[in-house]
Amino acid sequence: MNKLYETLLNHRSIRSYTDQPVSEQELNLIINSVQAAPSSINGQQVSVISVQDRETKEKIAELTGNQPWVAHAPVFLLFCADFFRAKIAAELNGENLAITESLESILVGATDVGLAMGNAIAVAESLGLGIVPIGGARNKPLELIELLGIPEYVFPVSGLVVGHPADLSAKKPRLPQKAIWHKERYDTDLEGLIKEYDQTISTYMKKRTNGKETRGWSQEISSFYNHIYYTEVRQMLEQQGYDFK
Amino acid sequence: MNKLYETLLNHRSIRSYTDQPVSEQELNLIINSVQAAPSSINGQQVSVISVQDRETKEKIAELTGNQPWVAHAPVFLLFCADFFRAKIAAELNGENLAITESLESILVGATDVGLAMGNAIAVAESLGLGIVPIGGARNKPLELIELLGIPEYVFPVSGLVVGHPADLSAKKPRLPQKAIWHKERYDTDLEGLIKEYDQTISTYMKKRTNGKETRGWSQEISSFYNHIYYTEVRQMLEQQGYDFK
Repeated sequence: MNKLYETLLNHRSIRSYTDQPVSEQELNLIINSVQAAPSSINGQQVSVISVQDRETKEKIAELTGNQPWVAHAPVFLLFCADFFRAKIAAELNGENLAITESLESILVGATDVGLAMGNAIAVAESLGLGIVPIGGARNKPLELIELLGIPEYVFPVSGLVVGHPADLSAKKPRLPQKAIWHKERYDTDLEGLIKEYDQTISTYMKKRTNGKETRGWSQEISSFYNHIYYTEVRQMLEQQGYDFK
Repeated sequence: MNKLYETLLNHRSIRSYTDQPVSEQELNLIINSVQAAPSSINGQQVSVISVQDRETKEKIAELTGNQPWVAHAPVFLLFCADFFRAKIAAELNGENLAITESLESILVGATDVGLAMGNAIAVAESLGLGIVPIGGARNKPLELIELLGIPEYVFPVSGLVVGHPADLSAKKPRLPQKAIWHKERYDTDLEGLIKEYDQTISTYMKKRTNGKETRGWSQEISSFYNHIYYTEVRQMLEQQGYDFK
């Protein structure tokens, strides 16, 4: 298959980096690819804040739930959903910004961030860089917003750590294709496939941790999802000017 | 630069397709790339429903707001945020599914869909296929859910039309890089850049439409965002089992 496909299929998370910096040119290519992604109504509702300052990275490492790789890697990129430019656009044209009163804007913002971040990851990995997405950007979002001077109508969706890999981690097996690809109609007969995947992940984890971790996928995610692990998300959205109609 | 970068930078929306079908092998490569995308806590909260049946595509073309390319193209892919598998996982382990009571799950679902759809777009375009994302999947989501048998905890985020391009549309210029890339802190001084971009888009549209359309970017998006254009999004999320804590 082609090289692009191989690069995407070869994706894995990297949490250990060398001291080699990410060059300005590499960052430029990453940001260009962010901008090339499609966006809803060409609204381009994504902003990236790049952080290279050591002290700021250390603070972010703490806020994201003590993730040391955030401090150690040369660059932390914060991906935000951004309707602040839409607010300026509205003001320039004597219009109201109404869309941020609806859940629609939150869906659009997060989807656009995903599309843009996907491009950033693909380009970074094609350049031999390693990455790990940081959902912990939503762990202490109010403090993160304060730290980086993020204005109204903008909210952090995910971080992305970028650097030169110190070692290559393994590639995690995915759900059986049939569990996520439905032809013509959604097929709810999924329990067997999930049990099969539990076996796959359990075997994979056993091998990777020398027998220390043996949980399957369903155990893992159900222990994550049995509570609301980031408790400030609604407060963050409200503070930034969003409503949920 | 490398081929992957060139492919991403070369992205454009295609709304006109030849009769040539998309092969099962091509669809397989697209779905493999969807699954290779990173996902929050390896939850893999994305499902794709592929529709090739003519009648169903015609119905979807109507529901998405009368978009004829949805009916004409050989394949329509519906990208859904999916916590139905997480629900099964919870039941298998005697746990509660609590995360869908929070906006966090909606952010996670939409971001994961963006990441996955970005990969699908990249692979499709690398194969010479054309695509256009269909945000209109949120236009009449309740009927779409009914039509495709979508269960609780799953909701449509975006469609993706895929086919062989009949002609190549132009590539739309993007916001100035400085408007979306902030170094170390968010820089709110954006009005000048938006006015500059208004000029760019106005000139581009004039040329593309032989002088018929002359609006700048800020006019365009502020007339879109001065009302809630998809009015059933909250109802869709509630019906599918979500809350907004």
